[in-house]
Amino acid sequence: MRYCFPYDSIAPIEIPSSHPVDVYTVQSIEASRQQAEEIVAASLAHPIGMPRLSQLVHGGSRILILVDDLSRPTPAHEIVPALLGELGRGGASESNIRFLIALGTHRAMTAEEIAAKIGAQQATRFQVLNHQWHDPAALHAYGRLDEGTEVLLNRALLESDVVIGVGSIAPHPAAGFSGGGKIIAPGVASDEAVGEFHWRSVHYPQKEVLGVRDNPMRQRIDAMAHMAGLTAIVNVVLDGENKIVRCFTGHPVEAHREGCRFSQTLYQVEVDRPADAGIFIIDTHPLDQDLWQGVKAMCALECIVPDDAVVIIVTPCPEGVSRQHPDVLAVGYQGLAATTELVNAGRLDKVTAHNIVQGGRLIERTQAFLVSPGIEAGDIQRLGFTPFACAQDALDEAIRRKGSRERVILLGMGGEICPKAV
Amino acid sequence: MRYCFPYDSIAPIEIPSSHPVDVYTVQSIEASRQQAEEIVAASLAHPIGMPRLSQLVHGGSRILILVDDLSRPTPAHEIVPALLGELGRGGASESNIRFLIALGTHRAMTAEEIAAKIGAQQATRFQVLNHQWHDPAALHAYGRLDEGTEVLLNRALLESDVVIGVGSIAPHPAAGFSGGGKIIAPGVASDEAVGEFHWRSVHYPQKEVLGVRDNPMRQRIDAMAHMAGLTAIVNVVLDGENKIVRCFTGHPVEAHREGCRFSQTLYQVEVDRPADAGIFIIDTHPLDQDLWQGVKAMCALECIVPDDAVVIIVTPCPEGVSRQHPDVLAVGYQGLAATTELVNAGRLDKVTAHNIVQGGRLIERTQAFLVSPGIEAGDIQRLGFTPFACAQDALDEAIRRKGSRERVILLGMGGEICPKAV
Repeated sequence: MRYCFPYDSIAPIEIPSSHPVDVYTVQSIEASRQQAEEIVAASLAHPIGMPRLSQLVHGGSRILILVDDLSRPTPAHEIVPALLGELGRGGASESNIRFLIALGTHRAMTAEEIAAKIGAQQATRFQVLNHQWHDPAALHAYGRLDEGTEVLLNRALLESDVVIGVGSIAPHPAAGFSGGGKIIAPGVASDEAVGEFHWRSVHYPQKEVLGVRDNPMRQRIDAMAHMAGLTAIVNVVLDGENKIVRCFTGHPVEAHREGCRFSQTLYQVEVDRPADAGIFIIDTHPLDQDLWQGVKAMCALECIVPDDAVVIIVTPCPEGVSRQHPDVLAVGYQGLAATTELVNAGRLDKVTAHNIVQGGRLIERTQAFLVSPGIEAGDIQRLGFTPFACAQDALDEAIRRKGSRERVILLGMGGEICPKAV
Repeated sequence: MRYCFPYDSIAPIEIPSSHPVDVYTVQSIEASRQQAEEIVAASLAHPIGMPRLSQLVHGGSRILILVDDLSRPTPAHEIVPALLGELGRGGASESNIRFLIALGTHRAMTAEEIAAKIGAQQATRFQVLNHQWHDPAALHAYGRLDEGTEVLLNRALLESDVVIGVGSIAPHPAAGFSGGGKIIAPGVASDEAVGEFHWRSVHYPQKEVLGVRDNPMRQRIDAMAHMAGLTAIVNVVLDGENKIVRCFTGHPVEAHREGCRFSQTLYQVEVDRPADAGIFIIDTHPLDQDLWQGVKAMCALECIVPDDAVVIIVTPCPEGVSRQHPDVLAVGYQGLAATTELVNAGRLDKVTAHNIVQGGRLIERTQAFLVSPGIEAGDIQRLGFTPFACAQDALDEAIRRKGSRERVILLGMGGEICPKAV
């Protein structure tokens, strides 16, 4: 068979007919005919695991609404008006409502960006704070986790009676799924905690995290959100065009769990007996800009490939490995042990380190090939891959190593796919 | 090989290894790192084939800005502020600027929808008209086309000195590409003209229209836009998430032609020697809701399949054939000749008739199979297809008819793909 990649710059491959081949891609999501506002309003009226927000608030309630930043697709402007309506219904006073942008360690959002995120009207009517992760005075210690870690989070949480997280739920390599209490931690946590969050996530096998709601990472998130007093979440699940398909309002754990179950039915792809296959081919679509993004496809593969398989990553990467994080190329992808040494020696920040292990742990246990017109062969080698000028050359070498009857698994939309072995 | 469709409800197929198979899907579009506003502003500053708008307008200019409606993905709210800035730079007076929503024959947009489309600020600051296609008093005859057709369009065009069309450019089965003068006709044309536009489009071979800028349909559009005094367009090309990738400002023909060239590089997929293949399999993703939408995949196939090929359409259609247009199922897909009789007898409106021919002309000259859990076998037969309970059964029958070595072409994202035989 001949398989065409979704890239002009990368020629198709011909897989000889002697190979059994399975081709997968992400599920089509059936768009909702309902207006976004109706979906959100219906969800607010029937919260999961708690009473309606209008029953919780009163005129004196100090209310804090957390929203994610522009790097996330949540259409908060379609959620916030109905949420404010629900709070108003309970008698909440507008002057007691504030917004906090959960930046993690991203840059502060500008006034224009805030207006685009939560709606121009809301942006002018309400006080909107950017999370100050770099300012110790803006943080407060909310206690310690069981193992002793201090929980440093934005002080505004402390100054609020009702805290509501607005976000979206999708498979996430470090948290299992986005959404829920993640808007608290790492959303409004300290610099240190954001690094720790990412770094810790690569200490667990990827298949026990990606697309799994209840995992050790989420346990910590839930604990921290609870300590910070997160009252409720309003989380949406989006389709491929970032339109709202479903909304989950309610208890930060219960509503999130239900949202994850729904997200799973949309995004999870069941891959038949991957342990029996020896050659895997994956693209990085739609995360094709650089390899920092594209590593998501390696996380997906990590969930299903057996040891010693040949994995062929196919990606254009017009911006190369990573302009923002040059250390990835300087250090190369490394396994957990080697990367830990670099982190402990203070030679690598933890966010970069987590990206390095996401690639490195796959390279460590497989025969990893990379085909990428945006990255030079020398750099590809330095990262830890075997470089090939085209996908066909990579496949030919895979066949030379694995034999002409080896089973091949092809995964399309590797940047979004959430595969599960069955 | 085993191929998995992007639908939970439709089981994968196994294609025996004796068949040469080619697999295609749509190209990945590399997102722009530039902000939408910057892309639009740069385009306004360097118009194609005409001077800057700020040089054309003055304080007394009566300006009309046409925008498409909510059924189109154009993010007008990201375009209009910069456009107003450009007009203001030329001295245009705010009180002389009006908006007109190019509804075709869709329902009028509500105040909330208008605010979402063009931005809340603009919606309150400017007069916004919905196109009144059903009100003869709102229309004006702008002249006749060469062959005699009277050009009836919204009267507001007549009352304006400068008319600017804001829209987007993507492959379109009836116009070749959307955008350009299409916002005038059928955008603000009479009921009759909208029907005529769709109906006329199926009188040309699909491969001479879809993804082709200069075609007989576009010639008429350009002529009508010229008669109506369309001054300029501001058209964007969007990525898969409806984000602005590029903007084309300028002369309604010149700028549109350049935009189409760019759109083509993104959306066109070159299919290798389709005339040599006897079995075609296509899904309808992302137009999966009903067969009225999904017919787009049949238009795509129509461009490349040879006569007598077996075509297998695979689509979930949770809403069946079409709730809004029951005549499709009542009449069934028909070829042009039979449908023309029904139109001439006044038994079928032209918009429905065009959908019927889009399916019918493919069925007429191929062996057309349909696999759709959302449509009953009896209805599938009534439409003109051979029904199959699953894709594998359809493939097995195709192999029985075409032989065990027949070449197979598989097209993913049939609702969006724009294939061209090479």
